[in-house]
Amino acid sequence: MSSTLIVLNLKTFLESTGEGAVRIARSCREVADDSGIDIAVAPQFCDIYRVSSQVDIPVYAQHLDSVGAGSFTGHAFAQCIKDAGAVGTLINHSEYRLTLANIDASVSKARETGLASIVCTNNVATSAAAAALGPDYVAVEPPELIGSGIPVSKADPQVVTGSVDAVRRVNPSVNVLCGAGISKGEDLEAALELGSVGVLLASGIVRAKDPKAALEDLVSRVR
Amino acid sequence: MSSTLIVLNLKTFLESTGEGAVRIARSCREVADDSGIDIAVAPQFCDIYRVSSQVDIPVYAQHLDSVGAGSFTGHAFAQCIKDAGAVGTLINHSEYRLTLANIDASVSKARETGLASIVCTNNVATSAAAAALGPDYVAVEPPELIGSGIPVSKADPQVVTGSVDAVRRVNPSVNVLCGAGISKGEDLEAALELGSVGVLLASGIVRAKDPKAALEDLVSRVR
Amino acid sequence: MSSTLIVLNLKTFLESTGEGAVRIARSCREVADDSGIDIAVAPQFCDIYRVSSQVDIPVYAQHLDSVGAGSFTGHAFAQCIKDAGAVGTLINHSEYRLTLANIDASVSKARETGLASIVCTNNVATSAAAAALGPDYVAVEPPELIGSGIPVSKADPQVVTGSVDAVRRVNPSVNVLCGAGISKGEDLEAALELGSVGVLLASGIVRAKDPKAALEDLVSRVR
Amino acid sequence: MSSTLIVLNLKTFLESTGEGAVRIARSCREVADDSGIDIAVAPQFCDIYRVSSQVDIPVYAQHLDSVGAGSFTGHAFAQCIKDAGAVGTLINHSEYRLTLANIDASVSKARETGLASIVCTNNVATSAAAAALGPDYVAVEPPELIGSGIPVSKADPQVVTGSVDAVRRVNPSVNVLCGAGISKGEDLEAALELGSVGVLLASGIVRAKDPKAALEDLVSRVR
Repeated sequence: MSSTLIVLNLKTFLESTGEGAVRIARSCREVADDSGIDIAVAPQFCDIYRVSSQVDIPVYAQHLDSVGAGSFTGHAFAQCIKDAGAVGTLINHSEYRLTLANIDASVSKARETGLASIVCTNNVATSAAAAALGPDYVAVEPPELIGSGIPVSKADPQVVTGSVDAVRRVNPSVNVLCGAGISKGEDLEAALELGSVGVLLASGIVRAKDPKAALEDLVSRVR
Repeated sequence: MSSTLIVLNLKTFLESTGEGAVRIARSCREVADDSGIDIAVAPQFCDIYRVSSQVDIPVYAQHLDSVGAGSFTGHAFAQCIKDAGAVGTLINHSEYRLTLANIDASVSKARETGLASIVCTNNVATSAAAAALGPDYVAVEPPELIGSGIPVSKADPQVVTGSVDAVRRVNPSVNVLCGAGISKGEDLEAALELGSVGVLLASGIVRAKDPKAALEDLVSRVR
Repeated sequence: MSSTLIVLNLKTFLESTGEGAVRIARSCREVADDSGIDIAVAPQFCDIYRVSSQVDIPVYAQHLDSVGAGSFTGHAFAQCIKDAGAVGTLINHSEYRLTLANIDASVSKARETGLASIVCTNNVATSAAAAALGPDYVAVEPPELIGSGIPVSKADPQVVTGSVDAVRRVNPSVNVLCGAGISKGEDLEAALELGSVGVLLASGIVRAKDPKAALEDLVSRVR
Repeated sequence: MSSTLIVLNLKTFLESTGEGAVRIARSCREVADDSGIDIAVAPQFCDIYRVSSQVDIPVYAQHLDSVGAGSFTGHAFAQCIKDAGAVGTLINHSEYRLTLANIDASVSKARETGLASIVCTNNVATSAAAAALGPDYVAVEPPELIGSGIPVSKADPQVVTGSVDAVRRVNPSVNVLCGAGISKGEDLEAALELGSVGVLLASGIVRAKDPKAALEDLVSRVR
């Protein structure tokens, strides 16, 4: 059985850039310790080394290209991401969509490099499709709810239960996260009740007045 | 008058990833000190902080997105690149082409963030076009010569002189670098004689048996 | 049970542009009549109306964007493709890859406009993924074999049988085509024996000395 | 001296798709005849042949890829566009942005195929850059005003005069069009007074209650 996972996408918010990324990672570490729930952060590429070398927390990249070693400029190379201290990566976030062929190649590249992979999707059909590629997680996020403050678990619970069912049918070893509009303890609780194993979230925590308090609220209803 | 500049693009070569990036940056630092010629490195995003915090050398990003602070995932945000210790960035490398509108926006973003900008181009016409956007440098590189070992200064000197002339006509405050196939002292010497102020290079140094010796050869004919 | 389908992609070959597209469509029509096997053509957008208004043959677009009616420039709008006389469309050809979200949206757009959809894929995993989106056909084509003259049915039969199996598991109502290197009667025969319902092909016919003779050979072993 | 040019982008509006494209092209033809002002239409790819074979009017494509004859699927090949009856093409419309290298290659491809080229830009800097590539026209359109109903000639006249000046400096043989929010006779009059030789427009005419009356108003103040 898979344990609950919270992944905090730090995006390019000023609050979570540079030293801000380290600061928020520390809060995540503390809340994870107190609650016993796994919390990972996904900082910008330039901040991965900085965070991973200063905070003992699982770090995910925000994106992974499927390029190998060689003549590639500006790309996110799996080995470099791993050397910088990351343990996994988001793939195909709604703010960085990839071709189907590249999602497949990025999932394979993550696997062979020893990075966990979370493929983001936008509906039940693409969740099923992503599951066929064998990532560790599929994270379903209706784009129109991202950053909206309206939790997917309330606004569109069927997209979560539908994705859980479809992913299970296509590839039962893939776990489902959900995201979009998630920020409170009741949202996480609802997400788990709908069959997901955790959440992917961002602004609701990063841009909260007190991110640590927001994290504490987020985990408050799960044991 | 502009002084000579060498920019070493570390691409995603295994030799210049992670600790390798730090090692090669140290060699650049030593050769720069001995020769008095400016040498900068352009490591992968994940290695910028690592290199800049350990080696006293100008660090460039390999790419810059024009995104601001906010809801952007997987993008290269100027402030984060700067916070990680970079002083400039490549833009529109032939391995990471951007739309014209995005090149313009990235140059502006670099300028307002205090990062130097090097816009890569592929021929005289696009060099002139890039100059109109007001970057610090235009680096002209015929794609077919990149990584070929055949120096642009020998194979296609007119693309360098033509770019120098065209850039001067459009915007005299922009300097021209040239690249593609550059690795030896005679290549750099020829590049300067053709009117460029320096070179952008990669595999010829990074993948040399002895990168430091290759760098020493590269600067040997310039004083 | 699904009947055999041959789809001839006219690409941007000079031989199959403008009047050439009409000419080759006529040959397809004649061979289809003689053999009783369905043959469709996929001309360039600009040639769809020209072909469909002069030849009684199923016409597919080479690509479909998921845009609706409105402020979109340069895009392939489903209604316009249909009005021009097409009955279906390729989606995600290896020469025009789309994001997963766009493949899904294009398949939906094709369905709601009454166009048949053929989603191209590159391996077993992406074939399974594409099947989850519910297109009419998945056409698996290993990119390295496209235009090679080496038939996929010989060089990599497992990618065909693997795709047929995987697609059946994910969505049994989706049929599999195969492509890449197909040009002869024995290739089509092998493709059908491997479980596909037909082939997607291009240069082997279009650039043959005598396209009509090549088509006659192609269908010669199937009844 | 260049005469006034009006280019009507038909986009993917339902009103200007299929038979609608032919209908609106006929209105353009009539108003051009009555006024003596050149009016061109830019229909969707699938409608180029249909319009050009039925209406005696200059037809532009909405986009051009720089691909040649060969193995390209879904691309806009210059020769096919020309064979379908087009005399020119938009390039880099704000709804279909291209890389700088591709804009350059598309302008060259248009020139060698005998198609006029209109490169769209978003501000003074990119207008100057586009002029360096030597197209027939640069059409400057601030994206935020496109489809707004607020004419660029009123909201941002400096972007027009600035582009006219910058383009003249970089390449005096290139003419400037302007666009975004243009729909009335006073808008066209203002556009010409600001130094442009004409306008690129779309929804203001296509989606007008009576497109022909809107066209008549558009040309009413120019002689």
